[in-house]
Amino acid sequence: MVDAKDVEPTPASEVSDWTDGADVVIAGYGIAGVCAAIEAARAGADVLLLERTGGWGGAAALAGGFVYLGGGTPLQRALGFDDSPENMEAFLLAAVGPTADHARIADYCKGSIDHYQWLVDCGVRFKEEFWGEPGWEPPHDEGLMYSGGENAAPFNTIVAPAPRGHVPQMQNKRTGQRGGGYMLMKPLVETAEKLGVRVEYDTRIQRLIRDDTGWVVGVVARRYGEEVTIRAHRGVVLATGSFAYNEEMVATHAPRLIGRPAAAIEEHDGIGIRVAQAVGAQVEAMDATEVAFFGDPQMLARGIMVNGRGERYIAEDTYPGRIGQATLIEQDNQAYLIIDDEGNEAARETETATPFFRTQPTWVAETVAELENEMGLPESALQQTVSFYNEHARNGEDPLLGKKPEWLKPIGSPVAAFDMRGFTAGFPLGGLRTDLFGRVLDIADKPIHGLYAAGRCTAGICTGGYASGASLGDSSFYGRRAGRAAALS
Amino acid sequence: MVDAKDVEPTPASEVSDWTDGADVVIAGYGIAGVCAAIEAARAGADVLLLERTGGWGGAAALAGGFVYLGGGTPLQRALGFDDSPENMEAFLLAAVGPTADHARIADYCKGSIDHYQWLVDCGVRFKEEFWGEPGWEPPHDEGLMYSGGENAAPFNTIVAPAPRGHVPQMQNKRTGQRGGGYMLMKPLVETAEKLGVRVEYDTRIQRLIRDDTGWVVGVVARRYGEEVTIRAHRGVVLATGSFAYNEEMVATHAPRLIGRPAAAIEEHDGIGIRVAQAVGAQVEAMDATEVAFFGDPQMLARGIMVNGRGERYIAEDTYPGRIGQATLIEQDNQAYLIIDDEGNEAARETETATPFFRTQPTWVAETVAELENEMGLPESALQQTVSFYNEHARNGEDPLLGKKPEWLKPIGSPVAAFDMRGFTAGFPLGGLRTDLFGRVLDIADKPIHGLYAAGRCTAGICTGGYASGASLGDSSFYGRRAGRAAALS
Repeated sequence: MVDAKDVEPTPASEVSDWTDGADVVIAGYGIAGVCAAIEAARAGADVLLLERTGGWGGAAALAGGFVYLGGGTPLQRALGFDDSPENMEAFLLAAVGPTADHARIADYCKGSIDHYQWLVDCGVRFKEEFWGEPGWEPPHDEGLMYSGGENAAPFNTIVAPAPRGHVPQMQNKRTGQRGGGYMLMKPLVETAEKLGVRVEYDTRIQRLIRDDTGWVVGVVARRYGEEVTIRAHRGVVLATGSFAYNEEMVATHAPRLIGRPAAAIEEHDGIGIRVAQAVGAQVEAMDATEVAFFGDPQMLARGIMVNGRGERYIAEDTYPGRIGQATLIEQDNQAYLIIDDEGNEAARETETATPFFRTQPTWVAETVAELENEMGLPESALQQTVSFYNEHARNGEDPLLGKKPEWLKPIGSPVAAFDMRGFTAGFPLGGLRTDLFGRVLDIADKPIHGLYAAGRCTAGICTGGYASGASLGDSSFYGRRAGRAAALS
Repeated sequence: MVDAKDVEPTPASEVSDWTDGADVVIAGYGIAGVCAAIEAARAGADVLLLERTGGWGGAAALAGGFVYLGGGTPLQRALGFDDSPENMEAFLLAAVGPTADHARIADYCKGSIDHYQWLVDCGVRFKEEFWGEPGWEPPHDEGLMYSGGENAAPFNTIVAPAPRGHVPQMQNKRTGQRGGGYMLMKPLVETAEKLGVRVEYDTRIQRLIRDDTGWVVGVVARRYGEEVTIRAHRGVVLATGSFAYNEEMVATHAPRLIGRPAAAIEEHDGIGIRVAQAVGAQVEAMDATEVAFFGDPQMLARGIMVNGRGERYIAEDTYPGRIGQATLIEQDNQAYLIIDDEGNEAARETETATPFFRTQPTWVAETVAELENEMGLPESALQQTVSFYNEHARNGEDPLLGKKPEWLKPIGSPVAAFDMRGFTAGFPLGGLRTDLFGRVLDIADKPIHGLYAAGRCTAGICTGGYASGASLGDSSFYGRRAGRAAALS
C-alpha cells in the first residue's frame, strides 16, 4: 500500500545530488514501458528504465498475450477475414458503450495495421492459424481468435464480425513457460536492449521531481532501502500498471472488485496514478473494470446462465469477459450455469478444456423441477426459463438473447446446476487522462510538462466494456507514442 | 459550459486590488451555502455569499424538500416510529452499497437528531403527520414519509424499517409556489440575513486565488461582465452544486445521464469541482448517479415492471429512485409496466395522483398473449412472467422479488403495457472529496488550506444508491460543518 502522504512532488531545488539521469526516464518495464523505451531510443534519446521488481515483464509477461488489433492486418487477411478500421471502430464503440472515448478509439483503429507491423518488425511472431471455438485463449499456438464477442449477440447484429485477438505464437503453453504474453515481451525486450536502453531493477518510484516552472524533471525512487534521485532531461514516462492491488483506491473507485483482483500483479498499486495526481493530473474512467468469469466458455455456450431469480440475462456464447461484467455489475454477482449431462460431457471433450474450470456440479437432478427445488429457487422460476429456452431452441432460435443456432439445443436430463455466484475477478481500467501523444493532462486538459504515461496507469481504449487484448493493445500502442513524444520534447 | 482552460488558480501576488472581502467567502446560495453561512456567522465570522443567479435558493428551493434524517428524531417519535442511529446507519450502508463511505454515514447518522433540531431552531417546520403511500412526495403538507425503500424488499428483510424523509411543511403545494424545498430554504435564508450575512448576487466564481504558501485566500468572480477579486481572510466554501449540466463532465464520468439531467439547475456546471481540482483537490464517486423514474409509484406498485426480455427485475413497491437506478444502470433503460385495468383505475383514484405521469397505455389487450405479441416480445416471454407472478400473488407471495403482500394481486384482463423505455433522468452524486469538517482534500488526503466545500459539488453520504432527502440532508449537515470550520480556521 502506498502511503498517501508520500506522493507529493519534490522540488528540484531540493535535490543537490542526482544519482543518475537520462533523456527519458521510464517507470515500469512491462508492455507500455518497453514500447516507450524502444521508440524513445529510436528517436535518439538516452533511455533509462526503472523497474521495481528484479526482472522485466510486468503483468504482460504473465498474460495470455492477446493484442487487440484489426482493420485488416496481414494476419487477418491471410486467414481470410475481412476487416477495416471503420468496422473495428464501430465494434469498439458498441462494446465499450457510453463511456467510449471516440477520438482515441478512432486513432487506435486507424493505426492498428501499422502497429501490427511494428510488433512483427520487433520480432513478435503470430502464427497463421485461426481458433474459432469459444474460450478464453486458444489451446495451442494459434495466432488469431475472437476475443470480445464480435461474433455473438448483440454485436454480430450490429457490425460484421472479425476476429481481432492477435496472439503471439506460444511455446509449451501447457507448462505455462512461454505463454503469449511472454512471447510478446521477449522480442520487445531484446529490441530495447539492442538499442542500448539501460535498466535499473529493484527501483521503485516514490515521487516526481518538479522544477520551479512546473516541469517534471525527474523521479525520486527507492532502491534497496535507499532513496535515489533520477534526472529526466526530456521527460518521465509512467508505465507502472493499474491500481488493482491498492485496496484503498479500489474501495473508492471500483469497489465491486474488492477482494477479487485478477490478471494483475501485486506491484499494481496505483503509484503512477498517485504521483501524477499529486502534480495535478486528471484521472478518468476510474470506475470501469475488466471482469473475468471463471467458467469454461465451452460449458457456458452449451448451457444457460441464469441470475439469482432464475432468469437468463446474456447470450452464453459470447466473450466470457462480457459474461463477467454483466454478472458482477448488473446481476449482483449472482449466477448459475444450468447444463445437461450431454452438454457437460461434450464440453469436456473439447480441445479447449480448462481443467481449472472443470469442477463438479453443485446440484444434479433428473428434472428441472427437482433441480430448481434443490437450488432453493421459487417453484417454477427455473422451470419456466428452461421450458421457454427449450421451446425456442428446438427451432434453432433464441429470441431473448440471440445465442447462435449452433449452440442451441434443448436442455435435457439429467440436468445440473453449477453455483457460480462470486465467480468473477478483474482489474480496473481507469487511470490518468492522457492525450493521443501520451502526454498526461491536468484538470484543464493541458499537458503537464515533462510527464507522459501509458498502459493501465492510464485510461485506454476500453473505458467501459472490454475485449481481451485491449490492454496489451493500447499499452503497447500508446507506450510507443509516449516514448516518442518524451524523446522529442 | 466552463472553459477548461480557465480554472487555473490566480496567484495572490497578481492581485493588486481586492474588490471586496470577508472572513469567510461562500460560493453558492443554495442549501449548502446558506447552512455554511449561518454557522460561520454564528462562529463570529464576517460572511460574504456569492450567488451567480439573481436570487437565493439554488436547486434546493425548487426541490421536493425531503431531508433524510433519522435515528429517532422528535418527528419520528411523535408519529410512533422507532429508529436509532445504528438502524439508520445499517439501512444507509445497505442502500448505498459497495461504495458507501462508512465513516461519513456513521457521522451523519449520529448527528441526525441534532441536525433536525438545528433546522427546527432555524424556523423550519415539519408537520406531525405521516404519509404512508408509495409516491415521490407526500400529496399535501405531511411531514414524514418513506423515501428510500426502507419498507420494501430487500431492505425490509435486512433492517427494521423507519421512515426518514422529513418534509418541511408546504403551502399551496399544488400551485408549486411553496414546495418543501422552498419552505426549507426560506427560514434558513432569514436566519442568515438576521446574522448579518452579506450577499452579492449575479456573481459567478471563475477561479481560486492562492498565496505563495498554497493557501486559498480568495476567488476571482465575474459580475456583469467584469472580473472581481474577493478576498477570504479565513476560508472559501464551495457550495456550487453538481456537474449535471456540464456536458463534458457528464460524458466523461456519468455518461448514462447524457441528455437526461433532472432535479438539478442549469447553474450546476461543475465549476466548484473544477476550480478545486485545479488546486489539487481529489474527487470521488464521480460515476455515481441519482436516477429518477418517471412512473407513478401508485401504478408501479399495482403492476409489474419487466425489462426488455419480459423479465421482472425489481420489487415494484420500492422507492422509485431505486427503480430508476436499476432500470438505467442494470437494464439498459429498457422497462415496461404491465398493469391490468383494475390496477390502473385504482391507482388513478389515489390521493397521490401525479397527473404528469398519467399517460395512456402504449398497448392494451384482452390477454397477456395478445399483449406480448403487440409489444413485439417473443412468444410466451411475458406470458410466463405474468403466469408465474399471478400464481404466487394468489397466495400473497412474491418469492422472486419480495413485493409486499398488500400489493400482490394477480394481473387480470384487460391488460395494458406502458412503454417506459428511457423514462429515467437524474443528477450526478460525485464530487470533491472532503473530510468530515468540510475541508477539501488533496490527492494525499491532506486538507487544502483555506478551502472548504459542501453540497453536491462534493461526494456526500450517497455515493452509490440513493434515498430522497440525502442531498438536502448532507448538503445542510456538511454545509454547517464547512462554514464553522472555515470561520474557526
